Amino acid sequence: MRTVTTLLSILMMTSFVYDVISDNPGTTPHLSEIFVGRCWDYKLIKYKQSMSVDVNCEALWEDFFKAFSFQAPCSLAMENYQEFMEQARQDLPIDKAMFWSGTYVIAHEYAQDSGRYVTLEDTLIGYLANSIVWCGSASDPSGMNSSRCPSWTDCPLEASESFWAAASATFAKSAKGKVTLVLDGSRDGKPAYSRQSFFAKHELPNLDETVEVVILVTHTLGGPVRETCTNGSIVDLTDDIKSRNLVFECLDDPPAIVHLLCADDPEARECRLVKRHLLPGGEKPESDLPSLLNNPPSRFT
Amino acid sequence: MRTVTTLLSILMMTSFVYDVISDNPGTTPHLSEIFVGRCWDYKLIKYKQSMSVDVNCEALWEDFFKAFSFQAPCSLAMENYQEFMEQARQDLPIDKAMFWSGTYVIAHEYAQDSGRYVTLEDTLIGYLANSIVWCGSASDPSGMNSSRCPSWTDCPLEASESFWAAASATFAKSAKGKVTLVLDGSRDGKPAYSRQSFFAKHELPNLDETVEVVILVTHTLGGPVRETCTNGSIVDLTDDIKSRNLVFECLDDPPAIVHLLCADDPEARECRLVKRHLLPGGEKPESDLPSLLNNPPSRFT
Repeated sequence: MRTVTTLLSILMMTSFVYDVISDNPGTTPHLSEIFVGRCWDYKLIKYKQSMSVDVNCEALWEDFFKAFSFQAPCSLAMENYQEFMEQARQDLPIDKAMFWSGTYVIAHEYAQDSGRYVTLEDTLIGYLANSIVWCGSASDPSGMNSSRCPSWTDCPLEASESFWAAASATFAKSAKGKVTLVLDGSRDGKPAYSRQSFFAKHELPNLDETVEVVILVTHTLGGPVRETCTNGSIVDLTDDIKSRNLVFECLDDPPAIVHLLCADDPEARECRLVKRHLLPGGEKPESDLPSLLNNPPSRFT
Repeated sequence: MRTVTTLLSILMMTSFVYDVISDNPGTTPHLSEIFVGRCWDYKLIKYKQSMSVDVNCEALWEDFFKAFSFQAPCSLAMENYQEFMEQARQDLPIDKAMFWSGTYVIAHEYAQDSGRYVTLEDTLIGYLANSIVWCGSASDPSGMNSSRCPSWTDCPLEASESFWAAASATFAKSAKGKVTLVLDGSRDGKPAYSRQSFFAKHELPNLDETVEVVILVTHTLGGPVRETCTNGSIVDLTDDIKSRNLVFECLDDPPAIVHLLCADDPEARECRLVKRHLLPGGEKPESDLPSLLNNPPSRFT
């Protein structure tokens, strides 16, 4: 009886997952406004200091739109986005490129919007397209399909998969110095490193031969520790890096990432601190300048 | 001689600071595109799940533009933004509102784009206006001054200060349950709590009487610890909270925030962990489902 119930639940979950896959949304409404707004926001405000870029945002939208509009979504080559990629590509700061595979959340928290590292999503190309949905339509007057875009399993080359493949390759080609890859050694049902991942297919093959790879393997607080730098699929990764003749190192649970995970669960046993914070009375001297000069009034004071 | 040099440096710094203050930029270029793009992005993508809102973004821009355009920037009342605030205001999730004063960076890192807490900048009103510059012009055909906007010291009521005062009041009025205030007990030359701050002037007076205030006092790693829950300006704050008859508690260096600070400086002595992470071999069971069902292919795998 219990087996039947379990089987039924699995079947129901399968059907649920299938529905989710097949019930894809269409192109995000107001796509051009979101795209153009993000572009000016990136260039003039959010990444003005850290990732400056010289683009005309209206022209960039035209390049992007031309790549997929009025076309069937299932037969779009990476080359379609070539002109867009060339207009939008940026130099990456040395030692700052961060790759992620199955670790979107923690890698981006660590990267801190380019404050610590630069992910693909911190480059203009990735920032513009992140979390939006788009695909072409050969029949709709708008050139886009607003009711349903195919999933990545529906067809071999699909509008946004081609885009992300080209974006990943562009990003990897621009990385210089030490590059960091964040992997999850606690994944349930999937290896930390897969040869089918974007990193394996589009990024590793495009890294410059002078690049050094730093692999960071994180684990869920409280475990399980399924894979580490020295076992499981990460050995495949180090083999693949060696075949490219790249220098690399691998670290399990770097303390900076453990601390970030601990912010969500300070009571976990991996998170206990040796001592509490300093007691009152510090060593840093007070400033000589009147406080108004140090801190002109603003909404941040 | 040394005194003369010091005086000269102070004068030069004063002049430098004055230049920075008087050399304000004008209205951010492409303001309407950035505003409208942010609005659809907020509503349809970035905060769709956590902070849903029912607005028409084009109409909202009209409300915003009407509030300050074709007017001298130095005489703008908070009431000008009233219609905009009413159209854009949102309910806040209970126990999630987070206020900051002099702690923009760490408070926002902790809040995590509404993942843990909701700051003013995670509401539509704050998200739209964050880091943009705008002011009106009575003479320019665009209705906006694109060459220079006054600073907050230049005139008593200025376009964006009035906006942020009204936004802060709107945010405080919507807070429910426990509200969190993050203060910095290590500030150089300024108190952790000032009665001239936005929190004191526009937020505390507008909190509902049923609200409970949780004060979190953070300190720079390695000190100095200038003020804590029980001394300095934080005593003024607790007096002000008591005059409003609100329930409150105060915590110095909550571990979650210490961990976030430690991500930037894991070697600091406050950051040492009692023990390293678990060794390989974990307790969490593998899933029964085939991995494809658990993890349909996407760019995040």
